[in-house]
Amino acid sequence: MAGRKVLIVYAHQEPKSFNGSLKRVAVEELSKQGCSVTVSDLYAMQFEPRATRNDIVGCLHNSEEFDYGMETSEAYKRGGLSSDLIEEQKKVQEADLMIFQFPLYWFSMPAIMKGWMDRVLVQGFAHEFPNCYDSGLLKNKLALFSFTTGGSKEMYAKGSINGDIRYLMWPMQHGIMHFCGVKVLAPHICFAPKYVSEEKRKDMLIAWAQRLKTLWKEEPINCSPEWYFK
Amino acid sequence: MAGRKVLIVYAHQEPKSFNGSLKRVAVEELSKQGCSVTVSDLYAMQFEPRATRNDIVGCLHNSEEFDYGMETSEAYKRGGLSSDLIEEQKKVQEADLMIFQFPLYWFSMPAIMKGWMDRVLVQGFAHEFPNCYDSGLLKNKLALFSFTTGGSKEMYAKGSINGDIRYLMWPMQHGIMHFCGVKVLAPHICFAPKYVSEEKRKDMLIAWAQRLKTLWKEEPINCSPEWYFK
Repeated sequence: MAGRKVLIVYAHQEPKSFNGSLKRVAVEELSKQGCSVTVSDLYAMQFEPRATRNDIVGCLHNSEEFDYGMETSEAYKRGGLSSDLIEEQKKVQEADLMIFQFPLYWFSMPAIMKGWMDRVLVQGFAHEFPNCYDSGLLKNKLALFSFTTGGSKEMYAKGSINGDIRYLMWPMQHGIMHFCGVKVLAPHICFAPKYVSEEKRKDMLIAWAQRLKTLWKEEPINCSPEWYFK
Repeated sequence: MAGRKVLIVYAHQEPKSFNGSLKRVAVEELSKQGCSVTVSDLYAMQFEPRATRNDIVGCLHNSEEFDYGMETSEAYKRGGLSSDLIEEQKKVQEADLMIFQFPLYWFSMPAIMKGWMDRVLVQGFAHEFPNCYDSGLLKNKLALFSFTTGGSKEMYAKGSINGDIRYLMWPMQHGIMHFCGVKVLAPHICFAPKYVSEEKRKDMLIAWAQRLKTLWKEEPINCSPEWYFK
């Protein structure tokens, strides 16, 4: 594991939050292993989530009718993406593993992190038909979604009102990461940390550190509808 | 239908885009019916997608450790949310039907629209335990997700690589709208408008206008895992 590079994309407003602690634990444990760890602290960076014309430096390919996907793809080819995107793409390019750390907002990631996906994973950089899914351009990388929920584990069980938590991970794990060729490790989910005791929260942090110790030996999950919706 | 109020939340950068045309068709057809139509044109408004301390006017309930959900809920109670949120909440409150019009980005809505969900649907306004799902605070309202895809209909069929398109609608339709008590009409999906003929695109616009003519007679979909994952 020594020498491996890890990018943590982190979306919480408050350093003292439980998400902040989970992020800190990951930085500490992975650094201890000799990994080189980079953190994109999206709120602290005031990361721009909106996909706009500002992402392209200089002239547009077609200024008559703005097409974000086409323009960013063209801009990528000629090195004309905005500097914040180039910066994030460099971090992705170098990373062996990306950890996404966030509180679940509405069965998904917070908008600031969705904006990171929308803007950073440009066509030509992360995918380029037919190089998608297993042959996506970011193959040989790993991703792990680590998040906290408001609801309890029981509320996210199969047959309960929120449905199996796997259902909501489909767009993130299959639709984004697998599409780009990234192999996905099992998610790390801390259920309802706000509603458990301080001791339980400490146990959750310890469990995360423990998991990270043997993370590099884990096999990716099977990113198929059968795995998600069985 | 005359007198009904419709809010269209629209997320496309380019008025000349196919999404722009779909939005225009909806405004025209619904106005013709005598509905009162309001549009939140998110990119034109430069709508803020980031959930931050700026959403709370004045002092925080707990300035030691910022908790976005708790703070916005407290701010809502005392009328202390930022003016852009109050504005959007008024539009939601008045609406009988909300139409979300957007291009699918990464199996989901663009970040700017996810930010609308994250920030506008505040606890106390849209939901308040145990008032969620069928007893959510926005019950008696309807929602409809109208979106365009890059991939073809075949690519989003059950058993194909993208999986049944229903799978990716689960977080939006069940996790957000149903959670707030909103009844969900069948989505309106225009597959791959970019890759079909001008004539086919016109047909798509006509089909949308046609559907809107009898929209008020439609029954909501069954927002259950059985419907989504059958």
